[in-house]
Amino acid sequence: MIKHAFSDNEIQGVYRAIAERRDMRHFTPDPVDQAILSKLLSAAHQAPSVGLMQPWRFIRITQSDIRKAIHDLVNEERLMTAKALGEREDEFMRLKVEGIMQCGELLVATLCDQREQYIFGRRTMPEMDLASVSCAIQNIWLAARAEGLGMGWVSLFDPDRLKKLLSIPQDAKPIAILCLGHVEKFYSQPMLIEQGWGEEKPLSSMIMENAWQTS
Amino acid sequence: MIKHAFSDNEIQGVYRAIAERRDMRHFTPDPVDQAILSKLLSAAHQAPSVGLMQPWRFIRITQSDIRKAIHDLVNEERLMTAKALGEREDEFMRLKVEGIMQCGELLVATLCDQREQYIFGRRTMPEMDLASVSCAIQNIWLAARAEGLGMGWVSLFDPDRLKKLLSIPQDAKPIAILCLGHVEKFYSQPMLIEQGWGEEKPLSSMIMENAWQTS
Repeated sequence: MIKHAFSDNEIQGVYRAIAERRDMRHFTPDPVDQAILSKLLSAAHQAPSVGLMQPWRFIRITQSDIRKAIHDLVNEERLMTAKALGEREDEFMRLKVEGIMQCGELLVATLCDQREQYIFGRRTMPEMDLASVSCAIQNIWLAARAEGLGMGWVSLFDPDRLKKLLSIPQDAKPIAILCLGHVEKFYSQPMLIEQGWGEEKPLSSMIMENAWQTS
Repeated sequence: MIKHAFSDNEIQGVYRAIAERRDMRHFTPDPVDQAILSKLLSAAHQAPSVGLMQPWRFIRITQSDIRKAIHDLVNEERLMTAKALGEREDEFMRLKVEGIMQCGELLVATLCDQREQYIFGRRTMPEMDLASVSCAIQNIWLAARAEGLGMGWVSLFDPDRLKKLLSIPQDAKPIAILCLGHVEKFYSQPMLIEQGWGEEKPLSSMIMENAWQTS
């Protein structure tokens, strides 16, 4: 037993959340309890951040016309993506890629403005701000799964148009449309595997020792 | 009680890992159990990934001369960062920013090569590959905390020089030097707060409704 280790049940909770978290696109319309939403946002806020930058911002969408406008933006990008996929266009169009109009809560996660003042850990790696916000989003995802709620991260959008829609400053950037809510059931595997879009690569092919090895 | 919710102890484990995870720079030299390392890498591999891309690769550093070379690279960037920080140079130089030579396990996390073939969720947002790898790293971080192990994410390096050192292909990219290992104690707050480098901003200032609001 390692000093500082959690109890067996707590450890199991962490691994279970990691294993059973899914990128959800199917939701039931039940509202999300506001106390749980607060806990999830607090979980996001406890994420690591490069040089204590805390670059995450969350815009909660409560107006139905704005939700609809976000859905329309995503749908346009969905069509553009389908075209860009060439021979897989039809196959892609059959996939459900988002649950924006169905989910109980819709959040837009953004990188904050005025990020150029943060140099610690970013002089050569400015994109570490995105890494921090991604960790914050993963915290929400895992805590939501433990609470029995599903989440989907939608990145099918033109960031400039989403900026305009939500009056996001030019030097900030939306990176995720987060669909959060109750679900009938969680996919037993990632939906893109269930639907035959792709196969999982084995972990063994992703671990190398001391230098890059071409597999 | 929400359908699909975990048990209270499991839920507590998830929130506890999120709350007590720290970016660690102080380690004891005890080795990391290989069975636990495997569990942590499996946790990484269960992360969400844009369009099922699974863009994470991990290079485990077991040769001490390579570990030392990585440390030297980081130390060079530490000096460059200190200079770039101007009036905070001395203050920055007093901070311990990494535990590369002390930690039980050293991993380099990279974005994979040949990423341009992945279009799903990346046509307008190509940086979603970094988001996926960041979620994978957060999985390791949280699972490690539950197991009683600490981790630090070091981004103080020149990615091109680290590529060269580890023979990483030009179209792949190292994004994190991960120091993993046993710790005497976890910081009770983020180390940069404990050391007075910065203060935490309140969550309330990061939540907006329906549009960006200037605080």
